[in-house]
Amino acid sequence: MSKYWSKLTQSLEPYIPGEQPKDKTYIKLNTNENPYPPSPKVLEAIKQAANEQLRLYPSPTCDDLRECIAQYHGLTKEQIFVGNGSDELLALAFWAFFDPGRPVLFPDITYSFYPVYANLCHIDYKLVPLAEDFSIPIDHFSCENGGIIFPNPNAPTGKYIEIAGIESILQKNAEQVVIVDEAYIDFGGESAVQMVHRYPNLLVVQTLSKSRSLAGLRVGFAMGNQNLIEGLDRVKNSINSYTLDRIALAGAVEAFKDEEYFRDTTLKVINTRKETVNSLEKIGFTVIPSQANFIFVSHPFVSAVDLYQQLKGKGVLVRYFNKPRIDNFLRVSIGSDSDMQCFLEALTEIIYKWKV
Amino acid sequence: MSKYWSKLTQSLEPYIPGEQPKDKTYIKLNTNENPYPPSPKVLEAIKQAANEQLRLYPSPTCDDLRECIAQYHGLTKEQIFVGNGSDELLALAFWAFFDPGRPVLFPDITYSFYPVYANLCHIDYKLVPLAEDFSIPIDHFSCENGGIIFPNPNAPTGKYIEIAGIESILQKNAEQVVIVDEAYIDFGGESAVQMVHRYPNLLVVQTLSKSRSLAGLRVGFAMGNQNLIEGLDRVKNSINSYTLDRIALAGAVEAFKDEEYFRDTTLKVINTRKETVNSLEKIGFTVIPSQANFIFVSHPFVSAVDLYQQLKGKGVLVRYFNKPRIDNFLRVSIGSDSDMQCFLEALTEIIYKWKV
Repeated sequence: MSKYWSKLTQSLEPYIPGEQPKDKTYIKLNTNENPYPPSPKVLEAIKQAANEQLRLYPSPTCDDLRECIAQYHGLTKEQIFVGNGSDELLALAFWAFFDPGRPVLFPDITYSFYPVYANLCHIDYKLVPLAEDFSIPIDHFSCENGGIIFPNPNAPTGKYIEIAGIESILQKNAEQVVIVDEAYIDFGGESAVQMVHRYPNLLVVQTLSKSRSLAGLRVGFAMGNQNLIEGLDRVKNSINSYTLDRIALAGAVEAFKDEEYFRDTTLKVINTRKETVNSLEKIGFTVIPSQANFIFVSHPFVSAVDLYQQLKGKGVLVRYFNKPRIDNFLRVSIGSDSDMQCFLEALTEIIYKWKV
Repeated sequence: MSKYWSKLTQSLEPYIPGEQPKDKTYIKLNTNENPYPPSPKVLEAIKQAANEQLRLYPSPTCDDLRECIAQYHGLTKEQIFVGNGSDELLALAFWAFFDPGRPVLFPDITYSFYPVYANLCHIDYKLVPLAEDFSIPIDHFSCENGGIIFPNPNAPTGKYIEIAGIESILQKNAEQVVIVDEAYIDFGGESAVQMVHRYPNLLVVQTLSKSRSLAGLRVGFAMGNQNLIEGLDRVKNSINSYTLDRIALAGAVEAFKDEEYFRDTTLKVINTRKETVNSLEKIGFTVIPSQANFIFVSHPFVSAVDLYQQLKGKGVLVRYFNKPRIDNFLRVSIGSDSDMQCFLEALTEIIYKWKV
């Protein structure tokens, strides 16, 4: 605490990203990164963009990338907003669409950045408890509110809501903005983007960090009615005119062009997820059905915090949240087949030792 | 305007960056970019960083880059904050250090992003009028205030305050944060960073966009007491944990290592500035003494708006601000010798035509 901090800053409880310990090399299954490298075409485009043009500002309107995403999703450039990762974009959306005094609704178990944004923006919020099985209770999103946000699939549970459920939320909240945070949609879900034409209150947010293997490049995007995109633009242009550098713009465009690589790698992750779930269930784990590139798992006898610590000791990082309702679960990112093999071996040893 | 926008968004008046018309190729002297490319070592580092590690998140704490800047400026890593360009960083500073209800002071003629940040953060502000000769009146920064920000050299005038003047402001405002925005300091000024050890209320902000020829990479940094840096961190980590991508981090580190290239290119800009000023004075222009990579100029007979439009017609872009006190001035970035040759030829033609 410092006397120089604003009252706002004093009151903040910042988000804490997954740990990145440097004491040794870990198998990193704690931040939902993709085990496969980005498309070689992306890397080539970045190398090409490392040229003397870097002395010039990037495009503040990012037209080429927006055009490319628009084509990919059957929209127009005016329906696309791009940002420095979906995190930044979600923060902009809190400022753009939510007002103090009218609570925003989100699930009690969800991405832990949402309450952080709300505090920063002085937005009230109301938690909607997930059902016993961690599914999102669609019907509970119809009470008086100033906006709605949830991930689909949800994080850290991996649970997916069908399009019909989202449509029902959109219909019941026609006067407020509903943000569907689809960071993990490409690993088995169906995107709500198909409803952008019909629902002017729908904002769909995606990222290149997960399914496009580009967490290190910081590119996220939002899709919605042109009015919503203009709202995001107004806030962005009150903070930073150029949030995406020339290199990120060049790489991101190429990521959308290499469709085949994207299909191949996401399919591999999906297949590894299936096999991992099977193996975990065989050794007694409960696994929440996931459509994401991570799984949320619990063991009937060995506590999650014990498993987390012992896995870390064996060089495998997973994510543990010390929070009500989920403090006996681990979130495990889906790595390569060989990563998951190591994870399962380490886990089996821990559980075997416990039994002995 | 949209019913879905928050009240905040409805009230914003976003910043408008310099135009980037695409109808033809212009000599761009309107956004203070460096005419020289980045160091070849920076480009090489970026190519090296275009590798499979891009699938992983960047370091949220950016330790390597902060360490490198700290060494360069004789500080510790804990006294350094890095961000996505100095614009983002200045926005974070408004949230971090300024409170509603206590006006922040800045000059009436200055970087036009300051009032935009203030509006976004609901911070009141009070304009301190520049003297007749556009110098910053040091003594007027001692009235009741909630913080102070100004560029040194000032933009768009290019006028520089000596260190003693800044020290006097720091001393008279020991209870508030004083932000010195040094985007242009490397083109002839002396940095206030030498006072960071003595003034816990001093935040010095710099950027790689101008003197390091990296406007396209989006890297800015702040230097100050560890407490101030922690304040910035709290706000940043309430918006986006990773604002700098892996490529920008790699390139920025190399920019600080190639000291010789930096000295050479800044010196070239300084020399071109001197020659340009001489030539302009010969054809009757008033030029405000500048320590920046731009000059602020006015002609006694031909209006600035006319000059701006006619220069644009001849393929030379400069910046015109339609604002009180400065609406008869043009801000002209210092390009290469050949850019300035073209600019001067175009200008001479316009003025000659006017005389005829």
